[in-house]
Amino acid sequence: MKLDSQDLADLAVGAAFLGTGGGGDPYIGRQMVQRCLDEGLSVDLVDPDEIGDEALVIPTAMMGAPTVLVEKIPSGDEAIASLRQLEQRLGRKATHTMPIEIGGINSTIPLLVGARLGLPVVDADGMGRAFPELQMETFGVYGVPGCPMAVSNEWGDCALIEATDNRMMEWLSRGVAIRMGGAAYIAEYAMSGAEVKRTAVPRTLSLAIQVGRVLREARSDHRNPFEALLSFMPQTLYSYATIIYSGKVADMQRETKNGFSMGRAKIEGFGSYHGLMEIEIQNENLIARLDGEVKAIVPDLICIMDSETAEPITTEALRYGQRVTVISVSVPEIMRTPEALDVFGPACFGLPEPYTKIEDLSA
Amino acid sequence: MKLDSQDLADLAVGAAFLGTGGGGDPYIGRQMVQRCLDEGLSVDLVDPDEIGDEALVIPTAMMGAPTVLVEKIPSGDEAIASLRQLEQRLGRKATHTMPIEIGGINSTIPLLVGARLGLPVVDADGMGRAFPELQMETFGVYGVPGCPMAVSNEWGDCALIEATDNRMMEWLSRGVAIRMGGAAYIAEYAMSGAEVKRTAVPRTLSLAIQVGRVLREARSDHRNPFEALLSFMPQTLYSYATIIYSGKVADMQRETKNGFSMGRAKIEGFGSYHGLMEIEIQNENLIARLDGEVKAIVPDLICIMDSETAEPITTEALRYGQRVTVISVSVPEIMRTPEALDVFGPACFGLPEPYTKIEDLSA
Repeated sequence: MKLDSQDLADLAVGAAFLGTGGGGDPYIGRQMVQRCLDEGLSVDLVDPDEIGDEALVIPTAMMGAPTVLVEKIPSGDEAIASLRQLEQRLGRKATHTMPIEIGGINSTIPLLVGARLGLPVVDADGMGRAFPELQMETFGVYGVPGCPMAVSNEWGDCALIEATDNRMMEWLSRGVAIRMGGAAYIAEYAMSGAEVKRTAVPRTLSLAIQVGRVLREARSDHRNPFEALLSFMPQTLYSYATIIYSGKVADMQRETKNGFSMGRAKIEGFGSYHGLMEIEIQNENLIARLDGEVKAIVPDLICIMDSETAEPITTEALRYGQRVTVISVSVPEIMRTPEALDVFGPACFGLPEPYTKIEDLSA
Repeated sequence: MKLDSQDLADLAVGAAFLGTGGGGDPYIGRQMVQRCLDEGLSVDLVDPDEIGDEALVIPTAMMGAPTVLVEKIPSGDEAIASLRQLEQRLGRKATHTMPIEIGGINSTIPLLVGARLGLPVVDADGMGRAFPELQMETFGVYGVPGCPMAVSNEWGDCALIEATDNRMMEWLSRGVAIRMGGAAYIAEYAMSGAEVKRTAVPRTLSLAIQVGRVLREARSDHRNPFEALLSFMPQTLYSYATIIYSGKVADMQRETKNGFSMGRAKIEGFGSYHGLMEIEIQNENLIARLDGEVKAIVPDLICIMDSETAEPITTEALRYGQRVTVISVSVPEIMRTPEALDVFGPACFGLPEPYTKIEDLSA
């Protein structure tokens, strides 16, 4: 499937939604891929079932605080440099690239790499959403090592990380990314086609495009985009979606710390919604509590959207006074196993609450 | 030249002297090499003039704050892992290893690597003393790139740095070393035999052994070790040596910051010495001011020694109340060129004072 400009526009919206507030500003990534299309390059999306077991898939991504990205726009060569570094280390050429997460800019970086290098992009990712740390990948959960991993910046500097486990890979590469100015570009979790089929969250790029399309078409048909979204999601692997709150942003705390965007949003209820909702953020929205009671919790999606336009709002764009609607969505079963929750469940973010499925919390 | 246990003991003392307070506790490095000798391994020191132009010399070292090293003893395998990583990257086997600096533990790490791997150790280094940062090498001053560079820890994690210049190599690898716990083991500045002859400070390992021997023999002959040292140095490339102060440590400020041991020692004059000497430290002693007037300045050596025993005192061992004698020594001409001072002159440490040779300051 070749992507066109409309697909890119829809993807930017859908990836911001699936990014649950994180993953960086999708606008920047979209513009970079659009420029490739304008230059006559093409982005070829392939279904994971269509790639050979012997394929060499090298995922590419941005690493760092989304708040930094807004001021430090990439050239697009950084992620390619990391992919090339990994090819050199492995002594093999990549046959495909792939996202590591389906959120914001990281849904678009592999499209840019694919367009520039003529590599097809696998329609799958390793997070099924956005997560703040690199060990938080279904790839790693199901046995694919993240290393060797390459980290590059816009000046041509590169670090090749050979860590003994994926947490140490995250720890060391984060130190490098911070010293590269808070945002860097990576290639990691190089794997075979067979491993992609076994460990990736499938068809999340096309899902993001569909989410964007559903919202756009509802708006242009003067239908309620929230209703359109809630009736679309059950047709996907993300089968349960519900509005958990609606109100006004009453307070927004935010800081860039240890290479992450940390924060807390407070939302005062509006209309039939009463009380104070607090959403804790580490790059992504992690937990939503209403007057202290858990309403949704990681890894299920917590998406803050503009109540008027149904545009997803990333954490760095959240402002005092915005009227917002908070939606939570169930994640695919591959992300809810005990092994998966060991790597990106609530405890991995220092949250004391146990994981409870959004279906159960809403019941 | 095969080193024996007495050579190692003398080297530890001489390297602490040439380390100008930095480079880590030489005791630990000496014990590690001694264990190799006890196991029947040998340390083979070769003169730089004796190695072939086509040799592949891979220097090895510890990187980090000496204050950390005292609590985090290396196994000895870390530097070997870094050397192996670099060999793999270069696709060639090292023929020799070499110190990057002739100070404290970093004069002994290559001996350990050489003994374990059966590699001869080149009798030379890239600092002619100790310096706190990795771009501060005569190797780099005269055109040898520091990268590719490998950084390893005791758990088997490794980062291969491919930076565009030696300052960025220092910056990125320091971030990795900090996240490896404040001390890590490196291989860098891989170079040919011809490059060693052109860029290294020659015969500094044998010099350190001789300095240790001169002090030891003077003590055992009941001669004044300071006088013995001052009459020995003019026979070497470090041709000018003088006592600049003697007194009691009146105050010692010290902190580990950004991966370095930062500090300031205050010494109150004793006997014929009057006033307050302040010595600023970044791992090494950088400048000695007497009542605000410069008495010695980097890159010339500033060595604080015990007034009774003439033992060199490293910065982490400096204590309130110690009676000390401060000696300054001229460095070889290869370290005093404008290109060299651009890389490790006073301005590189944020010091406002221009470089003035110790010969001129003492005149």
